[in-house]
Amino acid sequence: MSRADRVADALAQRELDLMLVMNLVNVRYLTGFTGSNGMAIVGRDVRRFITDFRYVEQAAAEVDGFDREQGPQDFVAALGDGWPEGELRLGFEDDHVSVRRHGRLREVIPDRISLEPAGEIVEALRAVKEPQEIERIAAAAALTDEVYGRLREQGLVGRTEREVALALENEMRLRGAEPGFDSIVASAERGALPHAHPTDVPIARGTLVTLDIGARLDGYHSDCTRTWATGELPDDLAEAYELVRRAQQAALDAVRPGPEGREIDAVAREIIEAAGHGEHFGHGLGHGVGLEIHEGPRLARTGDAPLVAGNVVTVEPGVYLPGRGGVRIEDLVVVTEDGRRVLSGTTKDPVTVT
Amino acid sequence: MSRADRVADALAQRELDLMLVMNLVNVRYLTGFTGSNGMAIVGRDVRRFITDFRYVEQAAAEVDGFDREQGPQDFVAALGDGWPEGELRLGFEDDHVSVRRHGRLREVIPDRISLEPAGEIVEALRAVKEPQEIERIAAAAALTDEVYGRLREQGLVGRTEREVALALENEMRLRGAEPGFDSIVASAERGALPHAHPTDVPIARGTLVTLDIGARLDGYHSDCTRTWATGELPDDLAEAYELVRRAQQAALDAVRPGPEGREIDAVAREIIEAAGHGEHFGHGLGHGVGLEIHEGPRLARTGDAPLVAGNVVTVEPGVYLPGRGGVRIEDLVVVTEDGRRVLSGTTKDPVTVT
Repeated sequence: MSRADRVADALAQRELDLMLVMNLVNVRYLTGFTGSNGMAIVGRDVRRFITDFRYVEQAAAEVDGFDREQGPQDFVAALGDGWPEGELRLGFEDDHVSVRRHGRLREVIPDRISLEPAGEIVEALRAVKEPQEIERIAAAAALTDEVYGRLREQGLVGRTEREVALALENEMRLRGAEPGFDSIVASAERGALPHAHPTDVPIARGTLVTLDIGARLDGYHSDCTRTWATGELPDDLAEAYELVRRAQQAALDAVRPGPEGREIDAVAREIIEAAGHGEHFGHGLGHGVGLEIHEGPRLARTGDAPLVAGNVVTVEPGVYLPGRGGVRIEDLVVVTEDGRRVLSGTTKDPVTVT
Repeated sequence: MSRADRVADALAQRELDLMLVMNLVNVRYLTGFTGSNGMAIVGRDVRRFITDFRYVEQAAAEVDGFDREQGPQDFVAALGDGWPEGELRLGFEDDHVSVRRHGRLREVIPDRISLEPAGEIVEALRAVKEPQEIERIAAAAALTDEVYGRLREQGLVGRTEREVALALENEMRLRGAEPGFDSIVASAERGALPHAHPTDVPIARGTLVTLDIGARLDGYHSDCTRTWATGELPDDLAEAYELVRRAQQAALDAVRPGPEGREIDAVAREIIEAAGHGEHFGHGLGHGVGLEIHEGPRLARTGDAPLVAGNVVTVEPGVYLPGRGGVRIEDLVVVTEDGRRVLSGTTKDPVTVT
């Protein structure tokens, strides 16, 4: 069953006739189109894809199973006609379409067609990966492991955080990928900031360095965090490492079809809280990964979706000690029928890189 | 007068009391905040800035002249209180806020406060650059010139388009900048696609290569296109080059305060049409550049805003010959009180790079 067929099924369950897809990530997922302007309309018997003059050739090469149209200069005006007969309920991505664009859609689309909020129909499908999607994510994860391997050879001490970040990203590019997000290289007290930007400060000996990187390869992302020592560690940092490692492993071991995201989050959080560091773990445990670096499902206190086979999520608890340093350990993991398959291959044993 | 003061003036003209700023580019422009989650509320006597726990320290360092708050886990809930007394008209970015978020805002914000579409108030201010913004854009443009200079030394023939694109981007990074958009390196018949992606095809001798690159430096963008020959050209491509060059120079010479964007577009378009290539110039002449690579004002058939001193725009006509190749030449230019200042320094004389 094609992805568009599955959208049609989901529409039927919500008593919708059609879905207007304008979010480009969703357009890519459904049609294969990778350009920067295109939209799709999907229904039981409707497969329309519309792009502008710049992308007509690209769409011919990429988009299969849809009727392809070239839209007019005033792009949204393409939605003025081409609709099936009768009164129809048209879903739109209410989490993506702006208030202004919604007003414009209402002007252009015939009155007999109602506009119904339907964001997350495509996202819900995207959260359950097909085997070939999982292999693409696994390839991006393996590439990230290679990049970490190179960094262990190259060393850390004396290089600036920025130099290390650029070198990591360069290794991705040499392997045909791109950084999927801004790399984090946060040493010493900057490791206590969960989203620190790499600085021009040289990395010191005897501290922790949090490395959070990911590649985008063939559209799909990987995401992997490791925290390495640059020499003998003070006791508090060494203990924080062992605590996070234990919490991360316990949460990872709990991943399987059935539990809600918040239950997996709770496994790690309870271990960290029991050690007296609850207030030092201020973010959620993880998130889905795929065509976007952050997508469903969420592993967080607010994650109420049960995990299902095909989900690909991060498991990334952290402990952040203000003024001292921080630890975060993150694996990428697929939920399988009988448990999990961890895609991140870089060791989580304590690593010292000087 | 601060940027926030100017927003307050613009609000008064539209009979609005306050503006809710959620688009992060606008938040950065008004407050200096460069993180990934923050919002601002601006009025005559109101300067609120709200971020989440991750960015409290960063906001303390970056945001000046605003009352800083840490929002709750449910971030938008911060807008439940803290408002001035009475019935108020609150502008919001209707071109940015999704239908879903608008519904949530309506739930959270007290009923006495009406939500009024006010997208483009901040964008209109951003379209007129301050002197220090122009110097930042000029620095990004000078950096791009340096990168082009390196490429002339390194050569083109036999390297793949992708290798050249990565090398150009690497030169930007070595100079402390990042690519502001996906670089275009389009040789031979791929030059006929205005937005071609670099391929693994080696660049041949005796054809044209369109190079469209830009740097982001300290938040501000540059944008510069050159089309270089890789040897003796067939007559049609050589003629296309001279035509585009002439059209580009004429449009550039027309840039000054007063004319509407479409008038500048028409200067180039009429020259290209008169040469019989009207249908081969399918895009607008140019766009504003600043914190975003595409912003106001537009130089296109639909550009009805008169240029004013402080606008920074591209002038980039092109001629695309299907199956043969394409030419585009693009400069970045500031509108000054008495005319223009061209920021792109790379020659537009015919260049051959082998």
